[in-house]
Amino acid sequence: MIKAAVMGYGTIGSGVAEVLDINRTGIKERTGEGIELKYVLDIRDFPGDAIQEKIVHDYTVIANDPEVRIVVETMGGVEPAYTFVKAMLEAGKHVTTSNKALVAEKGAELIALAREKNVNFMFEASVGGGIPVIRTILNALTADEIEEITGILNGTTNYMMTRMSNDGSEFAEVLKDAQEKGYAEKDPTADIEGYDACRKIAILTSLVCGQQVDFHDIHTEGITKVSAADMKYAAQMRRVIKLLASSKKTEEGYAVLVAPFLLSKEHPLYNVNDVFNAVFVHGNVLGDAMFYGSGAGKLPTASAVVADMVDIARHMDGNIPMEWKAEKRTLAEFGKMKHAFFVRTVSDKSAVQRLFGEVEYVDAGIEGEIGFLTSAMTEEAFAIKASELTVRSVIRIGR
Amino acid sequence: MIKAAVMGYGTIGSGVAEVLDINRTGIKERTGEGIELKYVLDIRDFPGDAIQEKIVHDYTVIANDPEVRIVVETMGGVEPAYTFVKAMLEAGKHVTTSNKALVAEKGAELIALAREKNVNFMFEASVGGGIPVIRTILNALTADEIEEITGILNGTTNYMMTRMSNDGSEFAEVLKDAQEKGYAEKDPTADIEGYDACRKIAILTSLVCGQQVDFHDIHTEGITKVSAADMKYAAQMRRVIKLLASSKKTEEGYAVLVAPFLLSKEHPLYNVNDVFNAVFVHGNVLGDAMFYGSGAGKLPTASAVVADMVDIARHMDGNIPMEWKAEKRTLAEFGKMKHAFFVRTVSDKSAVQRLFGEVEYVDAGIEGEIGFLTSAMTEEAFAIKASELTVRSVIRIGR
Repeated sequence: MIKAAVMGYGTIGSGVAEVLDINRTGIKERTGEGIELKYVLDIRDFPGDAIQEKIVHDYTVIANDPEVRIVVETMGGVEPAYTFVKAMLEAGKHVTTSNKALVAEKGAELIALAREKNVNFMFEASVGGGIPVIRTILNALTADEIEEITGILNGTTNYMMTRMSNDGSEFAEVLKDAQEKGYAEKDPTADIEGYDACRKIAILTSLVCGQQVDFHDIHTEGITKVSAADMKYAAQMRRVIKLLASSKKTEEGYAVLVAPFLLSKEHPLYNVNDVFNAVFVHGNVLGDAMFYGSGAGKLPTASAVVADMVDIARHMDGNIPMEWKAEKRTLAEFGKMKHAFFVRTVSDKSAVQRLFGEVEYVDAGIEGEIGFLTSAMTEEAFAIKASELTVRSVIRIGR
Repeated sequence: MIKAAVMGYGTIGSGVAEVLDINRTGIKERTGEGIELKYVLDIRDFPGDAIQEKIVHDYTVIANDPEVRIVVETMGGVEPAYTFVKAMLEAGKHVTTSNKALVAEKGAELIALAREKNVNFMFEASVGGGIPVIRTILNALTADEIEEITGILNGTTNYMMTRMSNDGSEFAEVLKDAQEKGYAEKDPTADIEGYDACRKIAILTSLVCGQQVDFHDIHTEGITKVSAADMKYAAQMRRVIKLLASSKKTEEGYAVLVAPFLLSKEHPLYNVNDVFNAVFVHGNVLGDAMFYGSGAGKLPTASAVVADMVDIARHMDGNIPMEWKAEKRTLAEFGKMKHAFFVRTVSDKSAVQRLFGEVEYVDAGIEGEIGFLTSAMTEEAFAIKASELTVRSVIRIGR
């Protein structure tokens, strides 16, 4: 049996223990030896729980035990996860993590350290929960140049957008509902401001371009400004509003952003509802592809972590090369990105026409304002024109 | 440079040459050395084409050249592909094929031979074209017990179903249109009778259960009986009709069948239109997932073949174990499978009620007949009851 340890016995960490248990037989068949948890690191004790006998409070117990070959990190946050993971890699242990904050910030460094120590650092569960998007990029779409990755990468906000679209509710109301259902945290900032999706698209872009993408460089808008009125217009246009995290290869570099978009029925992400996640990929020879599944949740996320453990168990003897250099990749300038925009304004049609020319108007029966669609233009050009109008809301148009 | 050969310079074979050329740089980065075509086997000559200098007419030239390490088979059909592929594996060459007929019939044997010779036999392109479904099952969903795989695995019939659904056309009309567009062959039997989808679901089921599934054992219905009137009822029920190839793990064994199904908007395959393919997977811990993309076409299919070549190039020194034993897997009996059915009959309501009890009627404005939905029952029980009615058409209900 291959001995493993889990650091952080929260939702995902306990899910990992559960999946190893539920699918013990299949995992043994696929790995030859099987995988057994020897330690669980947590600051808490779990008296009465079968896991209690495996609980340790000091990470060096794990680092110093040569029997432990695979360590799972499911603590979240950069510190102390970073210190612990680094210690495990330095001790020659393979590591898998579900921690997008850690991977987005320290990915290149930890990958390089793993290579140096001839072990593996994997992080399938850090993006898209149970959807095997990282493995697909690294091992499956290897005949392609990936020209676009656009995802619904945050289940909380997708649930909220779905509810607002279906029920006509306002933002504050669905946020409360999401919190009551356990889909949103007490402090929902990371989800609703798009920070979570931002880290995930930074990770995916790093994997596609093979270099460090700094998530601070990514223009990020959340869903907090999306209103029931916006949803009315969307319905009128037969579109839905989704928070997208998008990365496109352009001549000016990778154009990466996180923002709400209006999608038509033809878009592969149009029908991705509730807490589900999905990733749309365009390859230069593959064409369009889409991968859909549970983006969060205890067992789906744990499924991705354990799949990493199986992969590691099959490659116990060495490092599987992964291209993600520390050298920072400069992204395309936000102001130069081109989009078409839907705008709600209280200014009059003559002002709209003077600034944007002949536009398509949308009437959702909301008095005292005008809704219209612009043609495609740079963010810069749009911002200048829009600053001359009194704008109620702006949402970009997805294809 | 790793030397490779392509057997069969048709649509997919020439696509492979094209993809190796278009993405030469990326493929070199991912494989270290790069991959170069040394031979192309075809009975034809291609005077004036740059490929002509690589053309050979005798497969033993390839088998006997120790420099060739990877051989691609894109000829189609069981023979002579089987003889050629066997010779290549016996000569110690890695093989990848896009040929579902070959894999469905000889998969277990060729996998065993590859293992014996310490090389790899891969076939990503044989199912789902550019969608990396086989790699996902073998390498990504390894923490799960896969309980269901249901796919739209044939682009030709999905195009036809989409057209019939959108335009109200009859079967013969859309078949003619599909043939004119090059989506259907002159002899469309393999597609429209479901034989193609049947071989693909046999391959996927073999990979999930690790044993040979005989495609002759799979109950297979095509789309030839689906009519414009059926589509009217579907629209009335807010459902669409799709040809599904489905494999479910049950207590009685794997329940595998190919047949048209009525899907509701909630089904992840509802929105898969035109020539696209998609595969729905349910894992016991992952939950629902779906993978969508181009199921056919020159470049998408070649993308999957070349991804196999890259995988082989990364594992040149040995065999990657793959579980698919020659021992035949007995499937669940068709008669014992449970479905709900939509039925059109010219018999009267009293007969319907006597046989099926209280049912839900559907009115699509077609005179002289009744449409109704049954509750879930075994195929056997349904067949007995239905034999007492004069039935115009029967379509199973997907969830």
